[in-house]
Amino acid sequence: MDSHERQFDKELHDLKKKLLHMAALAEEMIDRAITELVERDEKPTQAVMEAEEEVNRLQIEIDEEVVRLLATRQPVASDLRLILAAAKINSDLERIGDLVVNITENVHVLVQQPPLKPLIDIPRMADLSRQMVREALHAFVTGDVLLAQKVILTDDQVDGLKDQVLRELLTYMMSDPHTIERALALILIARHLERIADHATNIAEDVIYLIQGRDVRHPTTPRTPPPDAAP
Amino acid sequence: MDSHERQFDKELHDLKKKLLHMAALAEEMIDRAITELVERDEKPTQAVMEAEEEVNRLQIEIDEEVVRLLATRQPVASDLRLILAAAKINSDLERIGDLVVNITENVHVLVQQPPLKPLIDIPRMADLSRQMVREALHAFVTGDVLLAQKVILTDDQVDGLKDQVLRELLTYMMSDPHTIERALALILIARHLERIADHATNIAEDVIYLIQGRDVRHPTTPRTPPPDAAP
Repeated sequence: MDSHERQFDKELHDLKKKLLHMAALAEEMIDRAITELVERDEKPTQAVMEAEEEVNRLQIEIDEEVVRLLATRQPVASDLRLILAAAKINSDLERIGDLVVNITENVHVLVQQPPLKPLIDIPRMADLSRQMVREALHAFVTGDVLLAQKVILTDDQVDGLKDQVLRELLTYMMSDPHTIERALALILIARHLERIADHATNIAEDVIYLIQGRDVRHPTTPRTPPPDAAP
Repeated sequence: MDSHERQFDKELHDLKKKLLHMAALAEEMIDRAITELVERDEKPTQAVMEAEEEVNRLQIEIDEEVVRLLATRQPVASDLRLILAAAKINSDLERIGDLVVNITENVHVLVQQPPLKPLIDIPRMADLSRQMVREALHAFVTGDVLLAQKVILTDDQVDGLKDQVLRELLTYMMSDPHTIERALALILIARHLERIADHATNIAEDVIYLIQGRDVRHPTTPRTPPPDAAP
């Protein structure tokens, strides 16, 4: 391997490391937002907003690195697909950051008012979503297809919990109009968490396509595998 | 210009045409879903689902074309940025399709029950979102920065309407618990439309960055313009 190739390998390694860092920030944001909800933190820390700014900064940095690598290294085959997957994952992680900011807005509404009910399903949804983000990124960095498939399966659990939360909160709203504003805020938090899990699922699907050349996004739509994909 | 360059120009032109086609489908889906809501279509046509499948097919086709162009043409500078913008727009349009499918799920809930109120703001939000999608794509294809800026400004109107819809429907829910399920479905439709407008805004921001080399996504985060951007 010549020094040019070694340098390129290092650049790809650094790109993966940056995405891992971004994912760790996103996870921390989810944890922080839900902790503020559960512990009814009336003076929420600036931690979520600061992490969000760092995520935005990283997004731009990674986008620029993707353009630079494509222009200067002119990669083909699996290196090219790896870099394009990194670009997509970058955008998924940034949207996860946005969704956590949306969650904190609803948390802010909730902590101003008396608690509606003990929270069990929403913290559980948050734990699963965080785990999905972590595992999807781990699957990307290590090329672990089985782990990516596990992430996709976990999404069904998150969807199931979201439906349960929705049904339960509708019952609250119907029996007592005073609960409507709080129940709606909780419903929206559950939906944001569901969408975070969807983004983790997107990442896991990209990992499977990257490694197997098999598109799992729209299973009914036929597609041709790329010529260099494993059989 | 040699025949190799002419061929590449034609490929870029075809890529833009495919995105325009995808955007036209997305627009038609929005129109169809909201018409079914307004006209209380109890037997909704399969039109939205069929258009969604076509959008998914196009997404895969465009993704493959992006990989092929990057691998075989090894573009640099503005061509490279154009192709990367196409890849992002492709993913925004596919998500718009998903959001319309979410809208139709809520429409289905609503047309089973008596109408809650005359709908004015939601069809208005749908019109604005459709217009934003159309104009964002037009700005991309023609390189029209002013039009892209107009799209970004229109997003504030959509957000304003969404807040208005939310306030009004909360009032309904609080005064009569029988309206809760329908009001919630309408709130979710308004949020899906708001997110469609956000995707159109993303596209417009990408167009501005493509042309001016100025990142308008996170205005507080400094970034270096690409070396070949206009001053």
